[in-house]
Amino acid sequence: MTAQFNPVTPEIIQQLISILGAENVSTARADIDLHAKDQSQHHASPAEVVIWPVSAQQAADVLKLASASRIPVTPWGVGTGLEGNAIPLYGGILMSFERMNQIVEVHADDFQVTVQPGIGHKDLNAQLSRYGLFFPPDPGANATVGGMLANNAAGIRTVKYGASKDNVLRMQVALADGRLITVGSRSVKQSAGYDLLHLFVGSEGTLGVITEATLKLVPVPQFMSAVVAAFPSVKAAIETVVAVRGSGLEPAALEFVDASHCHMLSEAAGVELSEDPHLFMEFHAAQEATLEAGLEIVKEICQEMGALSVRATADTAERKKLWHARHHSYEIMVRSHPDKQFFINDVAVPISAYPELIAFVQAMKVEDQVTAYMIGHAGDGNIHVEFPFATREEYDKAMVANGKVVMKALELGGTCTGEHGVGIGKAKYLPAEHGPALDVMRSLKQTLDPNGILNPGKIFPEG
Amino acid sequence: MTAQFNPVTPEIIQQLISILGAENVSTARADIDLHAKDQSQHHASPAEVVIWPVSAQQAADVLKLASASRIPVTPWGVGTGLEGNAIPLYGGILMSFERMNQIVEVHADDFQVTVQPGIGHKDLNAQLSRYGLFFPPDPGANATVGGMLANNAAGIRTVKYGASKDNVLRMQVALADGRLITVGSRSVKQSAGYDLLHLFVGSEGTLGVITEATLKLVPVPQFMSAVVAAFPSVKAAIETVVAVRGSGLEPAALEFVDASHCHMLSEAAGVELSEDPHLFMEFHAAQEATLEAGLEIVKEICQEMGALSVRATADTAERKKLWHARHHSYEIMVRSHPDKQFFINDVAVPISAYPELIAFVQAMKVEDQVTAYMIGHAGDGNIHVEFPFATREEYDKAMVANGKVVMKALELGGTCTGEHGVGIGKAKYLPAEHGPALDVMRSLKQTLDPNGILNPGKIFPEG
Repeated sequence: MTAQFNPVTPEIIQQLISILGAENVSTARADIDLHAKDQSQHHASPAEVVIWPVSAQQAADVLKLASASRIPVTPWGVGTGLEGNAIPLYGGILMSFERMNQIVEVHADDFQVTVQPGIGHKDLNAQLSRYGLFFPPDPGANATVGGMLANNAAGIRTVKYGASKDNVLRMQVALADGRLITVGSRSVKQSAGYDLLHLFVGSEGTLGVITEATLKLVPVPQFMSAVVAAFPSVKAAIETVVAVRGSGLEPAALEFVDASHCHMLSEAAGVELSEDPHLFMEFHAAQEATLEAGLEIVKEICQEMGALSVRATADTAERKKLWHARHHSYEIMVRSHPDKQFFINDVAVPISAYPELIAFVQAMKVEDQVTAYMIGHAGDGNIHVEFPFATREEYDKAMVANGKVVMKALELGGTCTGEHGVGIGKAKYLPAEHGPALDVMRSLKQTLDPNGILNPGKIFPEG
Repeated sequence: MTAQFNPVTPEIIQQLISILGAENVSTARADIDLHAKDQSQHHASPAEVVIWPVSAQQAADVLKLASASRIPVTPWGVGTGLEGNAIPLYGGILMSFERMNQIVEVHADDFQVTVQPGIGHKDLNAQLSRYGLFFPPDPGANATVGGMLANNAAGIRTVKYGASKDNVLRMQVALADGRLITVGSRSVKQSAGYDLLHLFVGSEGTLGVITEATLKLVPVPQFMSAVVAAFPSVKAAIETVVAVRGSGLEPAALEFVDASHCHMLSEAAGVELSEDPHLFMEFHAAQEATLEAGLEIVKEICQEMGALSVRATADTAERKKLWHARHHSYEIMVRSHPDKQFFINDVAVPISAYPELIAFVQAMKVEDQVTAYMIGHAGDGNIHVEFPFATREEYDKAMVANGKVVMKALELGGTCTGEHGVGIGKAKYLPAEHGPALDVMRSLKQTLDPNGILNPGKIFPEG
């Protein structure tokens, strides 16, 4: 699919300067390099020029120019992607949204906010706290809202609040031909024609570039509780997940940590975890009584399912302590492997298939002699297998293991990526996941970006 | 956009019979007429043949034949549409899913069910009750799941559980060229490429035909409560809506009924409503204590907002009595106007704009001397203005009023349809609502259905 591209000539630089102003265009090595690496191991073919639009119209005008000139454009939030989603593979123009990072309007009574795409979700939530509202998707890093929407990022609270796609109502999108369109509506209910909104969400900048978004917000929960429980088997833990959800309690987080990960975490200061599969749960409520009643039910369910230990609290300090191991699992893991980097796999399956997936990884670890830890958003059937590596050989081994986990997830009716997106790393699995539907995706790409300039090399296995 | 179509010849009938069997093909007048009318006033140009596929492959094979022969195909669920969404406008083939009405598989631990498109949602829920699970969208009538997905139907419980689009994970879709594709996944989290699932949901059969769907289910709530409150003004009622949602209580239904509608309803037996704006609320909980605590908060909020009366209960019989007027509002209205039919308008706005929209309709009723009642899903900013009519003149007057309400909703940042879909009736408003994004919808239609055979005459104003 990738077209032949043209280089960024001095004439193109001049045209970019006339659209954006000289202060928003750079060919400096430092700027180029800064936008050639995300949090993955994928290698960029660095951009030739970095630009910082300060308006949607500028972004649209650049796309029009780039499309007519057949120059690739890679949109960039802040580089927290885990699959190379936002790193350039064909040089060209790197379009950073760093300078479009403002709240446009808070619609407090509507529980909505309109933002520019470059705002970090943590920065957004800090500014929203005085309204008692927040934007719930939280991928961990301070990703930009534009990046989160482009990749349909999710995180630990998706089980209650949904992923990015569930928390957006309206976007402004710049198309490859320079049109600026609005998709969706500030109305929560929408049935007026094709759902273009969700076509652009998760399209990783390959169909259009998000230049503004109206997000759904939810009230900051007044009361929160935590439960941490150990189980004799993965199966018992997952039966607990099903029972908790079946009780109608609507957990705000329902996390699984496997025995070997618990063992590794427990060697850190302040962490007490037995070497068993654990569930970390969080509940949000508008009333204290609800929280207390819910905690009793959860404790009962855990005990019925044969939990080895159950710790539960509605106290804030105690809750933070209980969740410490989960919230800091990544940094504890990194600290405990000072000579290693980590590759983080991301797959998701229907929850009934979770025990089989976990068992498969456990068997693979033994058989292939590969080190791996498992941690995941069990409430959504999402798991991350974390592979430490230092050498090229170890990395390659992790990649082989990653491929096996992906193919197993697909066999179990799951997906090759629950929340990290396709980027570069997952593209090769899309034919197996989607079959002929991938051809439909290709025709939509061809329709909206006939010259293939938008974030080329991503999503489609042919580059 | 509408292409020139060819008639259904005896040769085509023979080909249909060879695909479907003679028992699933009919040119009988009675069958043709039965599939020429939905619950709207729109006039069909009846089909030339009615077919009943009994497998997805049959549906796909028919589409391939129809596309190659340039014969229009109108997919049909059970005809409960309110905007002519499923009535044929160019003759051709009427594809009824009446004989694909089975549950394919219940995935109980995953809270999912896979169904054929022709199953009625009420029939589905009756079969699911023994699992303690249900499919929450409820448009009122016993619409088919396929029709609900094709039109993104919603209903009174959307404020908590979402619309049809929020409750589907995976679909099988037959394309115009005869390809059968699977979109989405049984994984709750999905970030693997373009969201084709939501492109087909709400596309009203104009991009492809849904032949199977995996739906999300939720546990049947163990405890339910009801609150009915009267307010001195629409503004006070809507401030209550905002406050209740802001409290984090997550109502399962939050309905508004205007003063004149209350007056009309109160003339029926068993209904006691003052002639004031009312809110009808329903809450679901996993625990009795939660429900009780929530009720106290809701009562307090209503009183703070100046409610004239507040009736609240957690008792089942009492709850049904309290909600009687709302649940039976349509039939009471019809019964109280024995010589009239009703046109039901459907628009939605951000909730902050609700009082202005209601005030606009109230002023219009006086100014244009038109009778209208208002009832709506206030929690979602969705309102239905109901116009009685008997004569052509009254109907035309209602249509003019409908247009004014739609344009006001758009001016307020809303949509021309929150849950009834575009069909025939709303097509003319899409340019105002979507601007240049409508051209993008046109190009997607052109890409997926180049011969324009799929449900022609719907969604796009040019037919």
